[in-house]
Amino acid sequence: MRRQNLALVLATVAARSPLSRADVAGHTGLTRAAVSSLADELIGAGLLVEGESAPHGRVGRPGRALTLDPNGAAGLGLEIGITRLGACVVDLSGEVRLLETVPVDNRDRSPAEVFADLAALATAAARSAGDLGLRPAGTVMAVPGVLGPASGTIEHAPNLGWHGVALADHWPTGTPRPEIENEANLGGLAELWAGTDDETLVHVSAEAGIGAAIVIDGRLFRGARGYAGELGHVPVHPDGPLCPCGARGCLEQFAGVRAVLRDAGLRPGGRDPVTALTEAARAHDRRTLTALERAGAALGIALTSAVDLLDPSALVLGGAYGELADWLLPAMRSELAARVTVRPWDPLALRASSLGRRGPLLGAAELTVRRILRDPAGLWA
Amino acid sequence: MRRQNLALVLATVAARSPLSRADVAGHTGLTRAAVSSLADELIGAGLLVEGESAPHGRVGRPGRALTLDPNGAAGLGLEIGITRLGACVVDLSGEVRLLETVPVDNRDRSPAEVFADLAALATAAARSAGDLGLRPAGTVMAVPGVLGPASGTIEHAPNLGWHGVALADHWPTGTPRPEIENEANLGGLAELWAGTDDETLVHVSAEAGIGAAIVIDGRLFRGARGYAGELGHVPVHPDGPLCPCGARGCLEQFAGVRAVLRDAGLRPGGRDPVTALTEAARAHDRRTLTALERAGAALGIALTSAVDLLDPSALVLGGAYGELADWLLPAMRSELAARVTVRPWDPLALRASSLGRRGPLLGAAELTVRRILRDPAGLWA
Repeated sequence: MRRQNLALVLATVAARSPLSRADVAGHTGLTRAAVSSLADELIGAGLLVEGESAPHGRVGRPGRALTLDPNGAAGLGLEIGITRLGACVVDLSGEVRLLETVPVDNRDRSPAEVFADLAALATAAARSAGDLGLRPAGTVMAVPGVLGPASGTIEHAPNLGWHGVALADHWPTGTPRPEIENEANLGGLAELWAGTDDETLVHVSAEAGIGAAIVIDGRLFRGARGYAGELGHVPVHPDGPLCPCGARGCLEQFAGVRAVLRDAGLRPGGRDPVTALTEAARAHDRRTLTALERAGAALGIALTSAVDLLDPSALVLGGAYGELADWLLPAMRSELAARVTVRPWDPLALRASSLGRRGPLLGAAELTVRRILRDPAGLWA
Repeated sequence: MRRQNLALVLATVAARSPLSRADVAGHTGLTRAAVSSLADELIGAGLLVEGESAPHGRVGRPGRALTLDPNGAAGLGLEIGITRLGACVVDLSGEVRLLETVPVDNRDRSPAEVFADLAALATAAARSAGDLGLRPAGTVMAVPGVLGPASGTIEHAPNLGWHGVALADHWPTGTPRPEIENEANLGGLAELWAGTDDETLVHVSAEAGIGAAIVIDGRLFRGARGYAGELGHVPVHPDGPLCPCGARGCLEQFAGVRAVLRDAGLRPGGRDPVTALTEAARAHDRRTLTALERAGAALGIALTSAVDLLDPSALVLGGAYGELADWLLPAMRSELAARVTVRPWDPLALRASSLGRRGPLLGAAELTVRRILRDPAGLWA
């Protein structure tokens, strides 16, 4: 009961701060004595601070007001991208306090090598956060692959060439092991938390393969065993080209970054492939424009299935796809308009994410913050 | 609070009857006085009866035991099929007490004509139920079409040729207007209630078009606006034949009952088309077998998308498809095995429903019973 009330007080301050202790009592229905005891515990845990500023709109003598502690508990997010590593710290109010990405081509590197680099980045980020007064209370790592039901294992990250990688076997000792989560899922959560009203949404991203995060009633839907949202292998043209997965005509064979590069005739080498595509498209390179249009059409076909099955209120193009949205969206919209006909379908329900490629990294950092807000006692219980 | 406690007492008796009032108090933590008052109210409402039988496994003098009233409140289900009408009464224990179907070709009949016949069937069923001592507390009608967000309107039932049919405009006056629900959804619920352990399942049925009911965590998932599960227009071969919906290569063009009949070269006339297919397949008619195999392959491709997106623990083939399962399942299984490769997939997760074509009608009748058990006070509040 006290645990729930701690969460209630914290959530009330988060939603309406600054608030005096009396205001919190008024909003929550708790007694002032109870609020004081709960607030003291939250202040002690580095979640709330009490300042001199007057509560908003109040007249008279300024009272002491509770706000989220901007220099207390925080979330540390890490990301393994195909061509970069990233770290990000988000404070309790959801503010990004630190975000660092390092370009590095992770293809054909071993898990141990990549993890060592990322652990070093995490250590540096935690130190910088400490210098800002922040204390990361949890670390989540975004991974471009399929995670299995066993926690801490990357079952399948084909674009890294990793299979069955248990974090425990490769993460450097001496650095706290992060929790791992699929990058598409984290991108979808970041989109949800960025304030969309769409409680049932499909967030599509391409970092490595093509993944979708399915948010139902404001929560990430994982499926019966954690494999939901595997959009990349939805059959688009079932007799089409062979996919490394063994099937024919999967979405990735038309709209995966690798397929689009091939169709565009681009060889970015060590450069970021999406930047290469963006530049070529901006320069009106005919082959690139055709390849992106073809990818958009394939995405539109695959998302028709998602709309038919799930009836989401929004489809969001995020991750690398967000940066290519100008060239992908027209063909996607026209396929959806032609194929979703037996029910109303609003073309504007499909849009590009405003978070771009930072989505998964932001989501990784914010996940810890959201958990603290939902159950602050989880920090010490 | 009393409302919740009424539900608690009823659910306790439903799960463990026969139980004495003292047993109910023991299981629920309510006082014996409270249980007595609640039980009296439930008895008065025709939901519980108190008999002389001894509670199970007790020794000594037999006490008075509470059970669900087998002759009290009940659910009345109705169904509009393409080639039949049906009515069904289920008692509080979920027992089917009456089930009647009438073969009638409803294609090209007006809503008013079909509703008049069905209302007559409903009246007769309610009378027969009354003769058994049962009192239907709610009527739900299974409809082979897309229902809109507006209640009581069939937006689109292409196989009946109905569009934008508001029940209020066509249902005969003098007969209580039923609640309507999509037949695929009701079939899926019936499957769930028939005792499957699969809390996340996709139930596929073909009555008119092809529909799927998506059950997530034991509840029907409707999507943001109620259109979820529209499997029939999932693109299977996007450049394939034109569908009446305006798109190309929808699942229904390969696996809809009409498409299978056409491919099999069968013209059942006024006969039930699924029976015609079943008979031809049993007689080893080559064209029919090929048509069913082709339909199975298309279903397998469409369900690959469902598995990729939703990761269900089970795929259930119900409705008319249940009767054709012997001929559909092999090709479905082989497509799923070839296409769902980046995650584990159990071929036995795809199975035929044991309810066959009765599923939607059973679900329609049972929906009322489930609601009563969840909130008995809803009957009189």
